[in-house]
Amino acid sequence: MSKMLAEIREQPAALQRTLKSAARRIREFSRAVELQKPRLVVLAARGTSDNAALFGRYLIEMTTGLPVSLAAPSIQTLYGATVEYRNALVIGVSQSGESPDVNVVVAKAREGGALTLGITNEPHSALAQTAEHVLLVGAGKERSVAATKTYTGQVMVLYLVAKSLGAALKTSDLEAIPGLADAALRLEGEVNELAGRFRFMNRAVVVGRGLNYANAFEMALKLMETCYVAAERFSSADFLHGPIAMVDPNFPVFAFGPAGPGWPGLEETLLRLRGMKTETVVITDKRNREAPGQVIRIPVSVPEIYSPIPYIIPAQIFAAALAREKGLDPDKPRSLNKVTRTL
Amino acid sequence: MSKMLAEIREQPAALQRTLKSAARRIREFSRAVELQKPRLVVLAARGTSDNAALFGRYLIEMTTGLPVSLAAPSIQTLYGATVEYRNALVIGVSQSGESPDVNVVVAKAREGGALTLGITNEPHSALAQTAEHVLLVGAGKERSVAATKTYTGQVMVLYLVAKSLGAALKTSDLEAIPGLADAALRLEGEVNELAGRFRFMNRAVVVGRGLNYANAFEMALKLMETCYVAAERFSSADFLHGPIAMVDPNFPVFAFGPAGPGWPGLEETLLRLRGMKTETVVITDKRNREAPGQVIRIPVSVPEIYSPIPYIIPAQIFAAALAREKGLDPDKPRSLNKVTRTL
Repeated sequence: MSKMLAEIREQPAALQRTLKSAARRIREFSRAVELQKPRLVVLAARGTSDNAALFGRYLIEMTTGLPVSLAAPSIQTLYGATVEYRNALVIGVSQSGESPDVNVVVAKAREGGALTLGITNEPHSALAQTAEHVLLVGAGKERSVAATKTYTGQVMVLYLVAKSLGAALKTSDLEAIPGLADAALRLEGEVNELAGRFRFMNRAVVVGRGLNYANAFEMALKLMETCYVAAERFSSADFLHGPIAMVDPNFPVFAFGPAGPGWPGLEETLLRLRGMKTETVVITDKRNREAPGQVIRIPVSVPEIYSPIPYIIPAQIFAAALAREKGLDPDKPRSLNKVTRTL
Repeated sequence: MSKMLAEIREQPAALQRTLKSAARRIREFSRAVELQKPRLVVLAARGTSDNAALFGRYLIEMTTGLPVSLAAPSIQTLYGATVEYRNALVIGVSQSGESPDVNVVVAKAREGGALTLGITNEPHSALAQTAEHVLLVGAGKERSVAATKTYTGQVMVLYLVAKSLGAALKTSDLEAIPGLADAALRLEGEVNELAGRFRFMNRAVVVGRGLNYANAFEMALKLMETCYVAAERFSSADFLHGPIAMVDPNFPVFAFGPAGPGWPGLEETLLRLRGMKTETVVITDKRNREAPGQVIRIPVSVPEIYSPIPYIIPAQIFAAALAREKGLDPDKPRSLNKVTRTL
């Protein structure tokens, strides 16, 4: 079994640990929020962590009304500009905590008077030392180059951050997420079987919207890293503004489709793709009874706001299974190391 | 000749007109900026306009130090959340001015007390009526579905916006941009010849960084819309964090490579790709004497801050030429209309 698949399966336990390890430090962070009252939230990250940050961008803005920005680190690291973050909360997200550009953004923000937070798997990392506050992802050592359990762990921590910033999220609902992840893992056999059909796929599109937009990026990144598939990712709105032109019957579309406000638009897109004879696979759950095309259905009801973690799990399983079908080792993508240092 | 190519060639004149038409209203906007002193800039857009907005995101933050965010319209249009934009400048960017989701973001921001600005080609559009201030792109009617002259026109207006917000940009330098565009157009013959080599390309990566990051998105979008190439786009930093794994000798990489702070990292990436036998094409100019791989060189010296407009032009020509080589009509991408309405 690949390390990637083993780590995918660890997620319910890793999420439990994350809730525990972050809970210890969240009160102190919440007090700092009350004191400093940030007017803006900035998230800085790279790679998979940047996809978790993209989830945070949606969740925090949607549930707190605070404007959120994803940092463009090069503005500070390459161009040497200083950005006015005095009234901001600046959050660095990094599995290893050793991403130099993310750490520069956090360090400069802290110097400039911002409230700073690091979200990392590594308590002794540079990020954990640079940020004033630290919330740890309790995922345990990640051995596969393709990140899975640290992504869902970062997403979990971002729910806690949103709650600290005033989001009306119930602790009991957050505590139910590991169970949702467990239910999603029951799809392994079904997803493995589906993957065979895509053995010769070399291009794909992944679409998602709102809270699942980040999942579209994350599934695409897993397909790129572990299966060498040119996987595009779009919100269903942006997809219709141009990229849909490139789609043909050999160019399948994967979609994250929870019941919720984004569903009618996504369903329309899927029906339009059916008219174009495009093959589609939609990940949804029991609440969404009708969905066109091939369906991966999580066998429980998932409130949309808590869909990102259980919904990414079948996508992770799919990438690991497709890599195997293609004769590739998902734990060792060519040309990659676990920690990438960029400025 | 395709409408797309005709419109690519119109750009120096269109940019001149844009400078003139925006100049008339910029003073009023500058006074409003002085009065309201926005602390945050938010850009809302879709499709090609969203790529121009991405340029604005870098330019404004880099030259003014104001934090900038790209709006996620679905948070307001689908989820019905209200974002606190009271101290913000909210800018809608839309060629047609008829993008419902962009207009909702601008309208809600204006109600909430934000300073609002519309950047559009259409003086009678809904966006022009919704925003308090309007700066017109003087590109003239765009007939090709693939946007070219409105993209560079929007980029030009965003320089003026940055200047109003305090960026140290000289009017004489802005007035030189149409001449740089003209110099870039001289590459048409050379770029046409190069395009033939890529007749059977169906996957590609485009990389750019900082001020040219948006150009990577825009070139990729043109390749998707007009040539049906699965074109990925990344900053050279994000590319190294995972997606580089998918690249093989049949998966070429296009790069925007001006001399400047981003060049050493990009050069390193290009050399690494050469080691992997990947074919690369880099767009650069006279200032950058050495560049590995195939080179498209703009025949004048271009200060990096003014590189985005002249640098996108050979990429536009390349997409139009490649569409022709592939026997496609770049003016009428399948499955697309000129105006896309999404919420």
